[in-house]
This record gives sequence, C-alpha cells and structure tokens, in this order.
Amino acid sequence: MKGTVLYGPRDIRFEDRDDPKIEKPTDAVIRMAATCVCGSDLWPYRGLQPIDGPTAMGHEYCGFVEEVGSAVQSVKPGQFVIGSFATSDNTCPHCQYGYPSACIHREFMLRAQAPFLRVPLADGTLVPTPDAPSRDLLPGLLAASDVLGTGWFAADAANVKPGSTVVVVGDGAVGLLGVLSARQMGAGRIIAMSRHEARQKLARDFGATDIVTERGEQGVARIKDLTNGIGADSVLECVGTQESMQQAIRATRPGGFMSYVGVPHGVELDAQALFYTHVHLHGGPAPVRRYLPHLIDLVLNEKIRPGKVFDLVLPLDQVAEGYRAMDERRAIKTLLEP
Amino acid sequence: MKGTVLYGPRDIRFEDRDDPKIEKPTDAVIRMAATCVCGSDLWPYRGLQPIDGPTAMGHEYCGFVEEVGSAVQSVKPGQFVIGSFATSDNTCPHCQYGYPSACIHREFMLRAQAPFLRVPLADGTLVPTPDAPSRDLLPGLLAASDVLGTGWFAADAANVKPGSTVVVVGDGAVGLLGVLSARQMGAGRIIAMSRHEARQKLARDFGATDIVTERGEQGVARIKDLTNGIGADSVLECVGTQESMQQAIRATRPGGFMSYVGVPHGVELDAQALFYTHVHLHGGPAPVRRYLPHLIDLVLNEKIRPGKVFDLVLPLDQVAEGYRAMDERRAIKTLLEP
Repeated sequence: MKGTVLYGPRDIRFEDRDDPKIEKPTDAVIRMAATCVCGSDLWPYRGLQPIDGPTAMGHEYCGFVEEVGSAVQSVKPGQFVIGSFATSDNTCPHCQYGYPSACIHREFMLRAQAPFLRVPLADGTLVPTPDAPSRDLLPGLLAASDVLGTGWFAADAANVKPGSTVVVVGDGAVGLLGVLSARQMGAGRIIAMSRHEARQKLARDFGATDIVTERGEQGVARIKDLTNGIGADSVLECVGTQESMQQAIRATRPGGFMSYVGVPHGVELDAQALFYTHVHLHGGPAPVRRYLPHLIDLVLNEKIRPGKVFDLVLPLDQVAEGYRAMDERRAIKTLLEP
Repeated sequence: MKGTVLYGPRDIRFEDRDDPKIEKPTDAVIRMAATCVCGSDLWPYRGLQPIDGPTAMGHEYCGFVEEVGSAVQSVKPGQFVIGSFATSDNTCPHCQYGYPSACIHREFMLRAQAPFLRVPLADGTLVPTPDAPSRDLLPGLLAASDVLGTGWFAADAANVKPGSTVVVVGDGAVGLLGVLSARQMGAGRIIAMSRHEARQKLARDFGATDIVTERGEQGVARIKDLTNGIGADSVLECVGTQESMQQAIRATRPGGFMSYVGVPHGVELDAQALFYTHVHLHGGPAPVRRYLPHLIDLVLNEKIRPGKVFDLVLPLDQVAEGYRAMDERRAIKTLLEP
C-alpha cells in the first residue's frame, strides 16, 4: 500500500510502504474509512519540531476491523471502530483514574494517513459502533478520535459547568470543538477569540455567544470588559504558544480554571506570576478514550455535528495538498478519503 | 510604641514607631495577643527578596479590638479577633468565589510584629471568637491567621479527599500544618518529606504515616516506590524553589493534583514538560479568610493543635533572636508575646 511520509519541512510524500500486519496478539489491523490532518502535524511540517529522518504521519482514524490478534476479545473483523491517538490498555492505574493517554503501555499513534493501520492494544484502544455508520456520520466519528476528544477535554479540564463564562483561545479545529463542548456542558456564555471570518461563523454555529478579535494585552482587556472586570470562569487554551498561554492565564478570573491541550512549544511559565493569578491549570494529551463512548453516542444520535470542522475533503493520495491548505490557513481541517 | 523593622539582610530592629490609629472608617486597631515570624519573612531577611528601605514586618496576628472606625459593624472593642494576612472586603466577586486573598480591595498586611496593629477592611477581614480564649489556645488561634490557613489551602488545592495518598514537600511550619490539614480531610496515607528529626516527629504527631528523607531524583523515586510506581494523588508543595516544585510535580500521578502555596522564587516551569505530566496545578496566596471560621472552630474545640509548630516563644522585644533561630533552623516557628 501507499502511505504518508514527512521527509522535511513542507515535504509530504505519499509513497509505498509495507502493509501493516498483526505483530502482537493484542493488535488489530483496520481498513481506514476516513483519516485527516491534525493541527499538531503542522509543527513538524513547518520544521518547528525536529524529525528524525522520514516519518510516517497521521494519528486520527476510524474504519473497519480487518484482522485481530489472537488475544483480542472486544472487537472483531467487520466491526466499525474509532480509537484514540494514544493507545491504552484501559486497565492500568492511570487508565482507571481516567487518564488513558498516560497509560503505562501508551504508544502515540503514527502512520494513520494510510489505507490500513495497525492499532496496538486493540481491546483497550478501540471502541466499536453498534452498526456500520452511514457515510454522512463519518466526519463526526473521525473527529472523536482526536480533535473532538481534545476539545472536549479542554472544556472538561477547564471545569466548564452549567452557566459558566467560558473563553476559547484559538480558532483552529480544537478550539472550535472546545466551543461545541462547552455548549454541550451548558456554558452560559462562550467567548471565542478569532479574527478569521469563516471560523467566527463556525464558532457561532457551535455555540459561541461573543467573538473577540483582539489579541494579547488588548484581547485580555476586552475579556475583562465583557466580564465586568472579573475574568472568565473557564479558559480553554488551544494553541500552545507563549503568547496564547499568557493571554489565557490573564483572561481567567482568580480561582478560575485554565486548560491547555495543544502541545506547548517553547513556553516558559514564571511560577511567581502564575501564583498571584490564583488560576487552576490542567492540561496534557487528551484522555480521549475516556470520552469516546459518550462522544460516539452524541454523534450517532446527531446531538452534535463536529464533522463540520472538515472544510476540505480530498482523496488520500492528495494528502500533500491537504497539509498545504491547512498550513496556509485556506482550510480549517482536511479530511482524507482512502 | 515599638515595632519590628527590617533594615537589610539579617538586620532586624525593634524600634520606636508611630502608634497605629484609625485612618479610614473601615479600619480597626487591635491590641496584639500574640504574633510571630513567618517562613516568608526569611526571604527578605536573607536578602533574597529586595526591600525598598526600612520595612515594617509581620502579617500574622490575633488580639483584642481596641478601637473601630465609624463604618465597622461586625466587630467591636473588647472582642478577640483573628484576621488573614491579606485584607478583604468579603463582598467583591473574587471574595464571593472563595478567593478573598484576591479581593479587589486586598492589601497584604505588614507591621504586625508590634503591640498594636491597624487592620483595614475590618468587617471583611477579622473574625471574632465567641469569648476571650484561654491563654493555651492562643498559639493555635494565631496559627489560623496564616500558617494553618495556608497549610489548609495546600491540602484543599491539592484536592485531598478521604483515602487520598498525599505527599508533603517541605517540613517548615506550613508543610507540617499541610500534614495536619490532610489528616483532617481524611487522607489515607500522608508521606512527609523531611530530613530533620524534630520536624519528622511533629509530622508524625500531626498525622504523617511515612517519612521520606531523600530529595530530588531520589526523593521522587522513593515516592514512586511507596505508591507502586503510580505517584501520589495529591502533592503539597510548601517551599517555593525550582527544586521543590519539580520534585512535587514529578511525585504526582498523572491526573493528580499539586498545590503550591509558598511564593515561588526564581521558578520557571517548562510548559511542555508540565503538559506531559497531566498534573493539575493550583496555588497562590492562601484564601485564609474563607477557612477562618472553620479553623477557629476546630482550634476552640481542640480538634486540632496547630500551635505545636511554635517551638520557640520569645518576648516581642527579642524578635531579632526569633528571626535568627528560624534562619539557622534552630526553631520551626517563633511566637512573639507583646
């Protein structure tokens, strides 16, 4: 088969690779129904995160089980499954505490921008749907694999409750689905920070009540204006830069909660400054597997339509254009069809 | 009257100062029953925190109301009162959310190592006891003003619950009262990190179940050993240095909670490293006023004996020796009697 490989900055190739096969009794191999490009893929694509030679890409996936190893019990060939970007045994202490993305057997998935994929720890990682889903539900189910699960974690880690005043920093797909998640959790007010018209529109569609276009100092001042000088109860940081983290911390009220769910790049926090803000801070690789059954249920019952973040759909072999469009911010998120 | 003034590194003087008086209608003046030296006083005492000329010292206090301003309603002359090291109106949004130490009218107290003290925002800051307390209860009531309230916040901010496995980093008075607080909150296991015999003994007396003498890497390894490789549910960081913060973060299990309650000095947190730990982080100047009624009740009913942290009692005019003894770690905490 062919698969996606990053060779260096902006050098994505779709080229021959070995077919994945069962390597351990706990593996499954799935036939991809849909995969996509993640905002986090852009860090190495842009050369901002070093790679160690040609690197197979992709960690978001859903599809049909093709084959399972001899120890796999909870999924079987022919089933439609969705899995997290991080594998988990779903039984270790960290999994039991609700942090499957810190599983002692965790592996971060790679190689998913391809027609077939080996998934380790299939029993703990994959969640099957009751039936094969209709084609129009595929984007939403695919989103659950990472971008929706991560937006959901952003809202959960920022303690969004019914009536909360919420700020979302970042108008990428994760930020937009943070808006959707906050809405589902009953937030009273959701302020999306975006200066991009199409993304503002989608944010409103997902439940944003206010849009703030200012950034940095002025962005913080605007949030303070909108909250009677208090700051927000919950702030979701969905970018991962020094500026966005500072903006998020300063937009949170004392005793409020700030989550950060994109891998921070080059961010240093001054602990004394943080101390005086009284902000609760929580983040990390999203424990998507914990949320998957609930999110799949919401998608299948059409309570949410997270698939709307995919505003570009391409055949898998045009993956390089999928990266380019996101890099140039022509697309929010690219879905790839094998 | 005479009061305590810091002139420079290790230069504490007890010298003539103006008597405090009512300056605003919301002020009270109290006659000190007992005051003390705080671990945080040692930062400027050691020259590790710059001062801007001669600085009046002291922020922990309890005593009898001498006089009140015309707007004060909730306390009256003759009553015994305890207040927080941070003043609060107890009505602003931050106070209402439980963060009186972030009150929009907050002032950090100074000048309390003296026989009389002006307390701004008396209605919101001071809590009276039902009767004049007996002399043996004074140390415990004084502790509530900061060191107990801060230890209590450390345990609360680290989400200590019945059955939790707790680690306390720092064997100063705050850390020791963090142990006591965790015990009160029903922690199942409390691991105190200390290499000082008298402090280990007091930690055990307050409820520590285990003592770890190792520090840094080895300290973290020991905590992992004691928790089946998982890490602790709750870690209370009660020091404020780069080493102690790192040690605390790394001793916490993924998804666990770490509090930091001593002002961090020169501490930088790498956000990407923090991200991958999955730790919840919360700290700041302790919202002591929120806890005061409960803590005073526990002390008056002798459910807790936090006053045991005072292992040196001196007349107020020997305050310089009180600082010296703590600086040289001959004393855990010095109580000063006017």
